[in-house]
Amino acid sequence: MHLKISIEDLEHLARGAAFLGTGGGGDPYIGRLAAREAFRTYGPPEIWDPTDVPDDAVLCTVAGYGAPTVAIEKLICGDEVEHCLAVFERHLGRKVDALIPAEIGGSNSLTPLMLAARRRIPVVDADGMGRAFPELQMSSLSVHNIRSTPVVVVDEHLNSAIIDAETDQVAEQMTRTLAIQMGLRVFVACFVMTGRQLKEAAIWNTLSIALGIGRAIALGRQQGDPVQGLNDYLCSTPTYGLSKTLFDGKIVDLRRETTKGFSMGHCVLRALDGSGNEAEVMFQNENLILKINARMRAVVPDLICMVDRDNAEPIPVQNLRYGQRVKVIVVRAPEKMRGDAALQVFGPAAFNIRETYRPLQAMAGSD
Amino acid sequence: MHLKISIEDLEHLARGAAFLGTGGGGDPYIGRLAAREAFRTYGPPEIWDPTDVPDDAVLCTVAGYGAPTVAIEKLICGDEVEHCLAVFERHLGRKVDALIPAEIGGSNSLTPLMLAARRRIPVVDADGMGRAFPELQMSSLSVHNIRSTPVVVVDEHLNSAIIDAETDQVAEQMTRTLAIQMGLRVFVACFVMTGRQLKEAAIWNTLSIALGIGRAIALGRQQGDPVQGLNDYLCSTPTYGLSKTLFDGKIVDLRRETTKGFSMGHCVLRALDGSGNEAEVMFQNENLILKINARMRAVVPDLICMVDRDNAEPIPVQNLRYGQRVKVIVVRAPEKMRGDAALQVFGPAAFNIRETYRPLQAMAGSD
Repeated sequence: MHLKISIEDLEHLARGAAFLGTGGGGDPYIGRLAAREAFRTYGPPEIWDPTDVPDDAVLCTVAGYGAPTVAIEKLICGDEVEHCLAVFERHLGRKVDALIPAEIGGSNSLTPLMLAARRRIPVVDADGMGRAFPELQMSSLSVHNIRSTPVVVVDEHLNSAIIDAETDQVAEQMTRTLAIQMGLRVFVACFVMTGRQLKEAAIWNTLSIALGIGRAIALGRQQGDPVQGLNDYLCSTPTYGLSKTLFDGKIVDLRRETTKGFSMGHCVLRALDGSGNEAEVMFQNENLILKINARMRAVVPDLICMVDRDNAEPIPVQNLRYGQRVKVIVVRAPEKMRGDAALQVFGPAAFNIRETYRPLQAMAGSD
Repeated sequence: MHLKISIEDLEHLARGAAFLGTGGGGDPYIGRLAAREAFRTYGPPEIWDPTDVPDDAVLCTVAGYGAPTVAIEKLICGDEVEHCLAVFERHLGRKVDALIPAEIGGSNSLTPLMLAARRRIPVVDADGMGRAFPELQMSSLSVHNIRSTPVVVVDEHLNSAIIDAETDQVAEQMTRTLAIQMGLRVFVACFVMTGRQLKEAAIWNTLSIALGIGRAIALGRQQGDPVQGLNDYLCSTPTYGLSKTLFDGKIVDLRRETTKGFSMGHCVLRALDGSGNEAEVMFQNENLILKINARMRAVVPDLICMVDRDNAEPIPVQNLRYGQRVKVIVVRAPEKMRGDAALQVFGPAAFNIRETYRPLQAMAGSD
């Protein structure tokens, strides 16, 4: 059965996507408002299952880019996203047949839905990483040899740049530098690909899963334990399969700065059970590593997600506050995101983290 | 009679252009070597007098961009300049019919000649300012409503960006930021224009004048006073009409740093006549203002040029050295460069200089 996303679904989808965004991917509330407005005006877009995508279809990603701390100050309009795709298509010399989210994240799963509604083109139920990552090249698409370039960058004044570079990493550096100059809240269109490439490289059905997460949280709230409902749901998905709460505590230290084009920082949590246990989460737009009592318990590419301990509301990095009571949930990354080639692009070393990636199950087993 | 530029002319042309570059515009030696190599391989390009340019011809500028202190470390290859134009033309959807130098300056008058030889297209005997200026929008072309965008930026690895912006000043900011990221020695193609626009906006016959300056210096060296020969020649041209030596001294203080994407600094000269008089020249890639005993004697857009006091060799900012004995020559800017609209774009205020522009003659009269 094909996924349909109604206006009523957007709240669940946004909440689930914000969870998978692991702290990044943009603000779910703002993304949801923009998508709702587009759905109301133009109707919801058609959603393609990955198996529906013709092999020779041409697709690309469109996403917000910058630092989440800035994106809540400079709101999305919609015109700039449409202009971004228009510049991209003009450069390609053709229209794209459909969009695929670059990442699942609070607003970056919703931005393609908004644009697809405006343009009346489909969105594929899939994304480039099954989570959010801060840099352009940190994508399963890049790992599977889909080039990020040309990258089109557009700001709210419709200033634009079309970037071509010898590697995706250089493209990221050029895009980041420009994004800082342009106010650190821009939109990018990139990763042009065929349907055949998409099927091999993308993480499938992540819009469905985000919606499922949102619904599981809603149901859990009615039944009294939304965090458990969320973990149970994720464990039931073949894509993730493993999700568990590793810490329950209060934020007692928070450092967050907008620097080098990112929201960088860390927070320290103290356990609520009186044990004196402490957890630390470092982030660069997204949460990168979880240490408990100074020992690594989870690291990229596995997902480290902070949620409100009572209602399981995902907490993006820009909304972290001193004194918040949160649960830290870790989710095993999709299999495509854990291979050797993938780890080179977005494993710990790519973030200058010295620890070696160990699959989540192995660590969990040492409890 | 139409201008022809032979391999033998390149040395004179480069020297004259370096003089008009007022400290900037790139290194004349490097530019000359690159042009000579292209002339040898492909033959010299045809030179169009501005009156020869068909009204509906499509032209653009191609120039080195960054800081002159870096350009002498990262040498020109030629392929990157050709790639720059190719990206520009692909974006335009057509080939250009001819090139026009963006500025007259040590290498930036020669780069279009080199590229035109390689591409077997003509170069117009004119440029965008009759001197050199550090920023993209500081051009008579911009003053006459020829948009700088699209701007194509290319580095030595052939990484590229195509920039579009709401104003030429924003285009400059985006280009500068990217140029710093790309290593501060890039090439830009920009200012697409028709022949009709060129005739109205460009400064005419500046390649001829640069060649004339170089020849006047050469003749002056034979006759014993190259600086006088140079001044006499410039006074005889309708474009400039006024050129005089305002200071003769030794560099006793020099500060030069590569910062914010420019070669910034100043130098202090002490008079050689024992009078104790001191001159100060401030620069941002190009020389901006000359003060003698703390009193302004010349300021942009008029040309402030430093030459070796004995052989009149122009000294670009990257070649300034402590202890050099130099003459400071000031030249009145072409009339198109001195109107109110022009002064807003590249008068003193555009460089945060508080002094008001006064035409050179008026100041000279107060001697």
